[in-house]
Amino acid sequence: MTPAAQPLRLSTAQPDFESAFQARLHWSADTDAEVEQRVASILADVAARGDAAVLEYTARFDQLQVASMAELELSQGELKAAFDSLPAPQRDALEQATARVRTYHEAQKRAAGESWSYRDADGTLLGQKVTPLDRVGIYVPGGKAAYPSSVLMNALPARVAGVEDIVMVVPTPRGEKNALVLAAAWLGGVTRAFCVGGAQAVAALAYGTATVPRVDKITGPGNAYVASAKRRVFGQVGIDMIAGPSEILVLADGSTPADWVAMDLFSQAEHDELAQSILLSPDATYIERVQAEIDRLLPQMPRAGIIARSLSGRGALIHTRSMEEACEISNRIAPEHLEIASAEPQRWEPLLRHAGAIFLGAFTSESLGDYCAGPNHVLPTSRTARFSSPLGVYDFQKRSSLIEVSEQGAQVLGRIASVLAHGEGLQAHARAAEMRLKP
Amino acid sequence: MTPAAQPLRLSTAQPDFESAFQARLHWSADTDAEVEQRVASILADVAARGDAAVLEYTARFDQLQVASMAELELSQGELKAAFDSLPAPQRDALEQATARVRTYHEAQKRAAGESWSYRDADGTLLGQKVTPLDRVGIYVPGGKAAYPSSVLMNALPARVAGVEDIVMVVPTPRGEKNALVLAAAWLGGVTRAFCVGGAQAVAALAYGTATVPRVDKITGPGNAYVASAKRRVFGQVGIDMIAGPSEILVLADGSTPADWVAMDLFSQAEHDELAQSILLSPDATYIERVQAEIDRLLPQMPRAGIIARSLSGRGALIHTRSMEEACEISNRIAPEHLEIASAEPQRWEPLLRHAGAIFLGAFTSESLGDYCAGPNHVLPTSRTARFSSPLGVYDFQKRSSLIEVSEQGAQVLGRIASVLAHGEGLQAHARAAEMRLKP
Repeated sequence: MTPAAQPLRLSTAQPDFESAFQARLHWSADTDAEVEQRVASILADVAARGDAAVLEYTARFDQLQVASMAELELSQGELKAAFDSLPAPQRDALEQATARVRTYHEAQKRAAGESWSYRDADGTLLGQKVTPLDRVGIYVPGGKAAYPSSVLMNALPARVAGVEDIVMVVPTPRGEKNALVLAAAWLGGVTRAFCVGGAQAVAALAYGTATVPRVDKITGPGNAYVASAKRRVFGQVGIDMIAGPSEILVLADGSTPADWVAMDLFSQAEHDELAQSILLSPDATYIERVQAEIDRLLPQMPRAGIIARSLSGRGALIHTRSMEEACEISNRIAPEHLEIASAEPQRWEPLLRHAGAIFLGAFTSESLGDYCAGPNHVLPTSRTARFSSPLGVYDFQKRSSLIEVSEQGAQVLGRIASVLAHGEGLQAHARAAEMRLKP
Repeated sequence: MTPAAQPLRLSTAQPDFESAFQARLHWSADTDAEVEQRVASILADVAARGDAAVLEYTARFDQLQVASMAELELSQGELKAAFDSLPAPQRDALEQATARVRTYHEAQKRAAGESWSYRDADGTLLGQKVTPLDRVGIYVPGGKAAYPSSVLMNALPARVAGVEDIVMVVPTPRGEKNALVLAAAWLGGVTRAFCVGGAQAVAALAYGTATVPRVDKITGPGNAYVASAKRRVFGQVGIDMIAGPSEILVLADGSTPADWVAMDLFSQAEHDELAQSILLSPDATYIERVQAEIDRLLPQMPRAGIIARSLSGRGALIHTRSMEEACEISNRIAPEHLEIASAEPQRWEPLLRHAGAIFLGAFTSESLGDYCAGPNHVLPTSRTARFSSPLGVYDFQKRSSLIEVSEQGAQVLGRIASVLAHGEGLQAHARAAEMRLKP
């Protein structure tokens, strides 16, 4: 029998709303001292022994025994063969998703990722030069949860940014490869790919080995070992955010079919038991209808057990006084995915300040965004949308300030710099500026 | 007697160049286990006891005993009074620097920090909404190195981004306040300011206390305790990069007066003994002239001791085969500050891929950029310019993807998403997409 899915029912009018709401939101990434310790030792070992260490850990953790790292590399031919081997509908879907995600990120690059400069009245040039990173590493989880869409979402923005070398690592326990993942790597423009995973893969990318080239940044999701390893190598290489459990928040005015919204909540809950699905609505009868649809649809779902545990353990259906209040609560949650299930989404969107991605209107299910609408599905979780952004072209670019002071400009700037440098007790700074002044 | 400043002399033609070059570049941020341990305990204490803990640490570390946190807050009136108290030349210089830095960052916002969107052929809207962070914290070091310019460089991009609340923390050992720092806070638009520092200040900003409001991101330089604290709170709040020692690299074709270049090398070296100053030139006699100017100018410098130790311990004058080779070496170093001391800087600039800021031509001394040219002086150090950027407006903004799928668009996207979701074994994702398909 399918277990029941019973999200917590709350109303903003109840006296203990605040504490109950906070308790439901609470989640903390416990750092496991044992994991930290093991990861530190794996990193040190790979830094010291390179390929030999990576091979040993791969044999131990992935039950994959090979004689050399070369055997763990996937050739471009293998990636292409994986793509060619797919049934036509999968091939077509991957190609269309690739085209749409690429187009979106090209627009992103035009809007926010181009070099710029101007000259001031003194003829001094000021600006920023935007350049791609040289080489990046993409971590792709293997095993039970293999997500080809994540390969595209990590590789394509790097490609559009102009990154020359994209190195993918993916664990292949017992040598089992996922054809969709390899096909996505082919479409995404991955230049080299290795069948390694875990902290040893992160170490190989961060430090380089005889076979695995050292990268400048590592992106992509992974388990606790991978997350811990990324945190440790941060600074020597760049990393993306460390992701927490996935989240959806639906703001509903009651106009979207209740079964659509129920299924959208499921699509988050099915990821894992810690995923969080929250509905906010000023319409109490609509909330009842969504709960009824949850009850009706759940038994049809292959992943009903996970969905039920996620919704009962971390989900919530919250009755608010108004849509305005729902928007305020949403801003406090700063959700990863935010659906405005409303007949007038453009009315509410300006009120929403913090979210990874905002899905407007009844037809914009989160799953369309997850796969193929175009925007990236790697989004800030755990309230980090307060200060961080979706993965994008900008994550694979960096900026260098450009300053070319004219002789005339140096006369103006030199006097200001001299005063301020003396004020800070940095006399060489002052002298360097003063030397450029005409006598 | 002034100690000699003898940067290491290298030539790319010497057989052991590579190893000698690597040895000179080497620097690693040793993480001190004792510092880590102390910081962890301070953070936990402030999280648990709030203001009371901050007051105790301030009394202990800053010899500043007060009865309540309110006494440690600086009013807007005090900031303004500090500004008004300055001699006119300092007031004018700060105001002009503020205006120029603001103008540059406004241009940066227009170029790379505005919302954008487009509609595809199906009428689906795709884009990104750019919003400022709600509240940020700025750490300003106190004591011996008090840098008002850093206050401006951190506060102004936040202000231009549209951040409402800018909370400054600055230690004031024994209650000694720096008028220039307070004046810069006034000009930079700091909204609240507290006389606290160290890990306890970072904790107060990250967790909030009864008096200090919790922020979304913390930027600004600090000592080992501050750096360790920032690393630990990363994730709960955003942080900027953890800075290593400051660096300058000068590419010289021999056309810039040798004394100007010598002084530019000094202006980096005077920061501290670990700062790194490197000159690359294909002109051997020019290198000799720069060394001669170093010898001549050093005794005139008030900070001669620091300069000599920095140049002798970490500096290098490197003779290259050509300017092209010098550019290649510069790309490997990825310096924080990069001066092109050349008669044709625009010829070499396109060859330079990795640098925090590029200063073109003889008149563009680094010190002009440090104080008032306009670009930010908070720049990536320790080779992180390979993957990171100057502090900018974009550090005080975040992006939310916008997706509004039209009914027609849902028919196209739904079919693609359905195939891919089934391929990943996520059936609720597939059903959510399929429900939006017309029968």
